[in-house]
Amino acid sequence: MTDTSAPTPSDQGKIDPVFLRDLADAVGERDIRWLSRTLKRLHPADAADALEALHYDTFEEAVELLGGELPPEILIELRDSYREGAVEMLPDQAVAQALDELDSDDATTILEDLEEDRRERILEDLAPVDRAELERSLAYEEETAGRLMQTEFVAVPEFWTVGQTIDHARALGTDLPEVFYDIYVIDPAHRLLGIVSLASLLRQPRDIELEDIMHEPTTVLKPSTDQEEVAFQFQKYSLASAPVTDDAGRLIGMITVDDMVDVMQEEHSEDLLALSNVSSADASDTVLETVKARFPWLAINLFTAFIASAIISMFENAIEQIVALAILMPVVAALAGNAGSQGLAVAVRAIASRQLDGTAGRRAILREVLAASINGLLIGGGVGLIALFWFGDTSLGIVIAVAMFGTFLWAGLSGILVPLGLKRLGADPAVASSVFVLTLTDVMAFFSFLGLATLVLL
Amino acid sequence: MTDTSAPTPSDQGKIDPVFLRDLADAVGERDIRWLSRTLKRLHPADAADALEALHYDTFEEAVELLGGELPPEILIELRDSYREGAVEMLPDQAVAQALDELDSDDATTILEDLEEDRRERILEDLAPVDRAELERSLAYEEETAGRLMQTEFVAVPEFWTVGQTIDHARALGTDLPEVFYDIYVIDPAHRLLGIVSLASLLRQPRDIELEDIMHEPTTVLKPSTDQEEVAFQFQKYSLASAPVTDDAGRLIGMITVDDMVDVMQEEHSEDLLALSNVSSADASDTVLETVKARFPWLAINLFTAFIASAIISMFENAIEQIVALAILMPVVAALAGNAGSQGLAVAVRAIASRQLDGTAGRRAILREVLAASINGLLIGGGVGLIALFWFGDTSLGIVIAVAMFGTFLWAGLSGILVPLGLKRLGADPAVASSVFVLTLTDVMAFFSFLGLATLVLL
Repeated sequence: MTDTSAPTPSDQGKIDPVFLRDLADAVGERDIRWLSRTLKRLHPADAADALEALHYDTFEEAVELLGGELPPEILIELRDSYREGAVEMLPDQAVAQALDELDSDDATTILEDLEEDRRERILEDLAPVDRAELERSLAYEEETAGRLMQTEFVAVPEFWTVGQTIDHARALGTDLPEVFYDIYVIDPAHRLLGIVSLASLLRQPRDIELEDIMHEPTTVLKPSTDQEEVAFQFQKYSLASAPVTDDAGRLIGMITVDDMVDVMQEEHSEDLLALSNVSSADASDTVLETVKARFPWLAINLFTAFIASAIISMFENAIEQIVALAILMPVVAALAGNAGSQGLAVAVRAIASRQLDGTAGRRAILREVLAASINGLLIGGGVGLIALFWFGDTSLGIVIAVAMFGTFLWAGLSGILVPLGLKRLGADPAVASSVFVLTLTDVMAFFSFLGLATLVLL
Repeated sequence: MTDTSAPTPSDQGKIDPVFLRDLADAVGERDIRWLSRTLKRLHPADAADALEALHYDTFEEAVELLGGELPPEILIELRDSYREGAVEMLPDQAVAQALDELDSDDATTILEDLEEDRRERILEDLAPVDRAELERSLAYEEETAGRLMQTEFVAVPEFWTVGQTIDHARALGTDLPEVFYDIYVIDPAHRLLGIVSLASLLRQPRDIELEDIMHEPTTVLKPSTDQEEVAFQFQKYSLASAPVTDDAGRLIGMITVDDMVDVMQEEHSEDLLALSNVSSADASDTVLETVKARFPWLAINLFTAFIASAIISMFENAIEQIVALAILMPVVAALAGNAGSQGLAVAVRAIASRQLDGTAGRRAILREVLAASINGLLIGGGVGLIALFWFGDTSLGIVIAVAMFGTFLWAGLSGILVPLGLKRLGADPAVASSVFVLTLTDVMAFFSFLGLATLVLL
């Protein structure tokens, strides 16, 4: 903080507009030196935020100006769409240099952004060891531990003492990974034997052997482990990092909690959006991307909405005779739909946090049915009374109350059985659930209300 | 792993039923010794899972049997409702002992579970220092950094060398916090000067002074900082831990990433549930708790549903003459409601991840309007064509297509303006949003479709 003009770009997530103007001006004046110095002085996450806050054209200009001077730590902090744009504009050599400097998990993220042939070309520029390592990472499926792990970690033999380990770390110095929380203890065949956290290493005398203080790994991940499972393990066992081993038990990588925090955000976002029938969303989406992410679900809903219409049309005659039915029928559908969505959201969340396995699932079904009965009685009764007073027709009040109760039960059941069923089929319980549940409740709502009305009132 | 009968209770989150039966049997036979030994051998998170998988009565019996033998690390891993139940049944002395053994943030969680007078009684049993510390923690608002932080951390003066720091840690040994990732560097007045991560401490020679390797804290939290802000900082800066300082800049606590992971899950869950009109949910909720969390929203929806009915009743006459209107009107409402929910989910998520600040908010509004126009044209056109072929009435087809388009625009606007407005008012943008948005779209759907039909078709 010797420079009094040191930029303080963000306060509580808001970027200082004066700083932003300075940044844009520097880009306009092609002042590479100021730009590069200023960005490097910021935390990479703040620098990325500042770049993203520029107009996209100015952002592109800035990347073009900086080229290889754009620090890889900032590049990797950029939001997906900005990072992809930046990588596209950087010269091959700058990308190769970034790959070289970044941890392997971040390097893999950059590689994923590249077109096939450009990727090949750039990989050829790298040292054979690095190249082989990155190609191995890319060979793992997306959204698995293999893709998320970094191949930089600290592993030492079990007969080493605390003192030897610390001396070893000092000798490696900056060759050590930038961030690590645990030291892995391995045998000569590179098989994982145990873990020593840095905190416990620190509190032990120099002559203690690692095998006496290491603990058994609570979680050993395989490269094929799904990222959702990885995130679950991190949360359950409060992990800061976890080892990844191959089928022979050999240590091949490490995943750190900061990457898992990002995965958790991603998975949560996906659930929330899927429940509202959006297939993906990003703040930088274009209009076209937005339409693409939503239109298919609306098209499906168009189809299911006409199923509900078809049900109504079966009772055309009843509606012609009693127009109150047309006035009231959306009430049954809206309320039961709301009840179904409530149960669905609870179920999707409980499934995601593994709370509906085995007997818990059966208990949850029972609870939903009972809760739906109570809410159905209360809300059905309320609607019945309002209908009675509004139209002065006791039978109509009773008909709508009974239809409502039945539809609530049905909605409660669908709200839990649809996601559980999807899960059992191996599908994501959040995707498509709400279309199913709302269609089922709409059909039931119109059918039961108009059907009962036909039987009783006509 | 010397004992071959060592329990391996969980595999991929599923608890071995045989182990569970053994556990229940041990409770039945009041075999405290086996129970306590077995639970202690498990990871506390696994032990908690196993206890939660028992029938609730058996769980209660187990807690009663174990009493003070129930390890506090397991107690704190139990889900809220189970932990509260367990704390209620444990004798005062066992609770006091747990408070003593746990880190202050966990101890505060236990204290929160206690009734006022019991809390007083138990606090009196503690050493005055511990008591004062816990009372200070409890004085902070819920869901703030003050409540989440632990008062156990490692802080050393800036003129210390790496060697001195390591020797100090060794001297403290088990008096050090169980888990920590960073060492805080402070001045004589206890003001925070910088941070040295354990990884960087480890790679430095013994004679280096901390002030030469410490980095400035990226994030300094105040005890009053909201937990959502804390979680945001952890994700943004990939933190493993963060310091909390008082207004004078004195270091008073530390928050670790595992606690933040829990907070993130909580906040996400809240958003997802709030969007579906559920005020809270837990897998162990009773039927009554479930009804309580949902009925109020249904009651509000009951009221708003009748607003929509009132709109329909204004057009009684039109429906009596053209029953096709009654058949088609739910299509307009359902599809526009879906479009509104889509936009709402995207907006709520973007607000939560701070992507709609400033100009980004205005861009998002524009994007929503344009996307709604395109989807409205496409879906409105589709609905119009279907109506035309179904009822053989061109005017009806045009009327519904136009009404649909208008309602889509309206839904798109509500989907983004309602959450942004709630946020500006300082309210949670997820809570109540969907009731507002769906009511607005329903009203618009019925009004525009039936109104246009009255003007054009009658």
